[in-house]
Amino acid sequence: MIYADNAATTKVCDAAIEAMAECMRNGYGNPSSLYSFAQDAKEVLEGARKTIAECLCCDPKEITFTSCGTEADNQAVATAAKIGRKAGKMHIISTAFEHHAILHTLKRYEEEGFEITLLDVAPTGVVSVEQVAEALREDTCLVTIMYANNEIGTIQPIAEIGALCKERGILFHTDAVQAAGHLPIDVKAQNIDMLSISAHKFHGPKGVGVLYARKGIVLANVLEGGAQERNRRPGTENVPGIVGMATALKIACDGLEESTAKVTALRDRLIEGLDRIPYSELNGDPVKRLPGNVSFCFEGIEGESLLLLLDAKGICASSGSACTSGSLDPSHVLLAIGRPHEVAHGSLRLSIGDDLTEADIDYMVESVTEVVTYLRSISPFWRDMVEGKREHVFAE
Amino acid sequence: MIYADNAATTKVCDAAIEAMAECMRNGYGNPSSLYSFAQDAKEVLEGARKTIAECLCCDPKEITFTSCGTEADNQAVATAAKIGRKAGKMHIISTAFEHHAILHTLKRYEEEGFEITLLDVAPTGVVSVEQVAEALREDTCLVTIMYANNEIGTIQPIAEIGALCKERGILFHTDAVQAAGHLPIDVKAQNIDMLSISAHKFHGPKGVGVLYARKGIVLANVLEGGAQERNRRPGTENVPGIVGMATALKIACDGLEESTAKVTALRDRLIEGLDRIPYSELNGDPVKRLPGNVSFCFEGIEGESLLLLLDAKGICASSGSACTSGSLDPSHVLLAIGRPHEVAHGSLRLSIGDDLTEADIDYMVESVTEVVTYLRSISPFWRDMVEGKREHVFAE
Repeated sequence: MIYADNAATTKVCDAAIEAMAECMRNGYGNPSSLYSFAQDAKEVLEGARKTIAECLCCDPKEITFTSCGTEADNQAVATAAKIGRKAGKMHIISTAFEHHAILHTLKRYEEEGFEITLLDVAPTGVVSVEQVAEALREDTCLVTIMYANNEIGTIQPIAEIGALCKERGILFHTDAVQAAGHLPIDVKAQNIDMLSISAHKFHGPKGVGVLYARKGIVLANVLEGGAQERNRRPGTENVPGIVGMATALKIACDGLEESTAKVTALRDRLIEGLDRIPYSELNGDPVKRLPGNVSFCFEGIEGESLLLLLDAKGICASSGSACTSGSLDPSHVLLAIGRPHEVAHGSLRLSIGDDLTEADIDYMVESVTEVVTYLRSISPFWRDMVEGKREHVFAE
Repeated sequence: MIYADNAATTKVCDAAIEAMAECMRNGYGNPSSLYSFAQDAKEVLEGARKTIAECLCCDPKEITFTSCGTEADNQAVATAAKIGRKAGKMHIISTAFEHHAILHTLKRYEEEGFEITLLDVAPTGVVSVEQVAEALREDTCLVTIMYANNEIGTIQPIAEIGALCKERGILFHTDAVQAAGHLPIDVKAQNIDMLSISAHKFHGPKGVGVLYARKGIVLANVLEGGAQERNRRPGTENVPGIVGMATALKIACDGLEESTAKVTALRDRLIEGLDRIPYSELNGDPVKRLPGNVSFCFEGIEGESLLLLLDAKGICASSGSACTSGSLDPSHVLLAIGRPHEVAHGSLRLSIGDDLTEADIDYMVESVTEVVTYLRSISPFWRDMVEGKREHVFAE
């Protein structure tokens, strides 16, 4: 099996599994209890917080543990909205191709009276600092723009957008769920006020995430309950999950340079290979993109069939994001970068890790080429194009 | 070490750890993805849902996975509030000694215009069906009363309250976080519309819970994001955690009868022993209580010192709930059953499991007796009582 869906989720690294099992076996105390066995769990929890803070270049007190990236995103928006509402500032800026954890949350606040500006995204999938600057208003309380896109892998100019927001005294949040462990993060240098990450995207466990919030920002609660996480996130702390996350993030950050070099080379080999398929196009920027992300649109095919036939060849891939795979609508990300409906349906995302070899890449190129060719041979849509009854969207 | 704080959290059972590790190692696919490796994860997820549904006597479709009991409680209240608001029914009934996951959430809805009736609790800690009946109004949209209290272990007449609500067409939710795996649950027979459970209270992992909602109830979202859990709970499903929870719940339910008999006998031996300490009193009902719960108030001592000295003797215990241990306020539960402040401060909760022996119980009785005697010997408060300058609250 070639696993090329790391943007959906990753294999948990052995060190994280071992740390979690050890914690569940011998360190299962409730960190809020008083006796030493529970205080040991508290120490483990705080150790994990310190490790994660080091990876993000912030203070441990700026780390709040959540149950996932979605919850972190929700809480970041809720926090800015609460602060904004108090100050009479009810305008939020984001982009049209954010994750639904942001877009659907913004929708909720729009219903409550907030005004939302969703910036258009250039065909390359990059938002410019100028676009943000133009959209800023006196009543803007939050700019939330993802570090790297989950479908097409584009990396945004986070530090520059952060600097602009800082200058204007506006909160800046970034959904770094796809970035953490794959791109360098330094929340101070990058002028980030709030940032969300999710453990299972960097070989940590599912069900645990982090919301970083700069000192001085009082988080709004999404959940109500006990006094855990200094009153910012109730519920007994998921110590084993948090320890697994810290273990995985440290390994990812320590090996970042080496892994980036290796994965980028594999990625470019894959892009080069797939680019040879006629009437296909890479989605997103060729350079400003996640090391492991390859996203293509192919004319005249259905993404779903493509995935099923690749599955039969032992390749795990996806069309867009896994979170919306239940939906028949084309990806809002691909529509945002200007892909027409019929082409957006023929999309393929291969998100690779450093466990793959050049031979794996070549096998993927060969397999995708074969499958696309086959699917076109049975597609009435494609036949219309071949017969000149329908225009091509892409160049040959 | 004698671990007697199972109401705070439990040791994860080996079978759950193994199931989780196996899932993380070999079944890490994202259940929302299309290829067979991910669909295998989906099958595992649905298998766990079926197991849990069997344990609660409901349909798998009525199970929604959450990140903890707190989130389940929050979502249950949000759901009833949304339904109530639509129908113009904005009155909610609960009790004064619910968990903060309920009480703090109700507070939020009160700020939004809901009227909240918190029923008084009898000194035994039991709420009567008559009390609920009297409090019901035309505009009541929800009754939420916990199955068993987390501090004093009292079991409420859930089935009878549920029947009353059913008759009147009012939603009934119960926080069964302390009950699941320790008391029989049959949501249909007990007339329960919504029910919350948390895995780490029955030897499952931390960071995962369930909200059961009767077919026909459309859950309100607490978190916004992807389309997971049929649009009811976004975020990549925590498959390993869910599998661990299902494994632990099945073991707990299968062994319920045997374990209840054993733990109840140990509990009663412990109660009998502690009852011999002068000027002490059992909190809650002696019979209608969780098999493993022992909660006492001792005159003239501070709970914190008691816990620290018991810790030195290798006994893990708590005063009230772990969720509020950061607070210096006396337990709202003990105040609700009428304990005066100074006595509520001298509380001890021992929540035992079936891993303990009679010898452990006797050691606990001996240790608590010794520590209480010692603490009283250095307490000015106690001296005042001995010297008749201050009245005793309890009989000798």
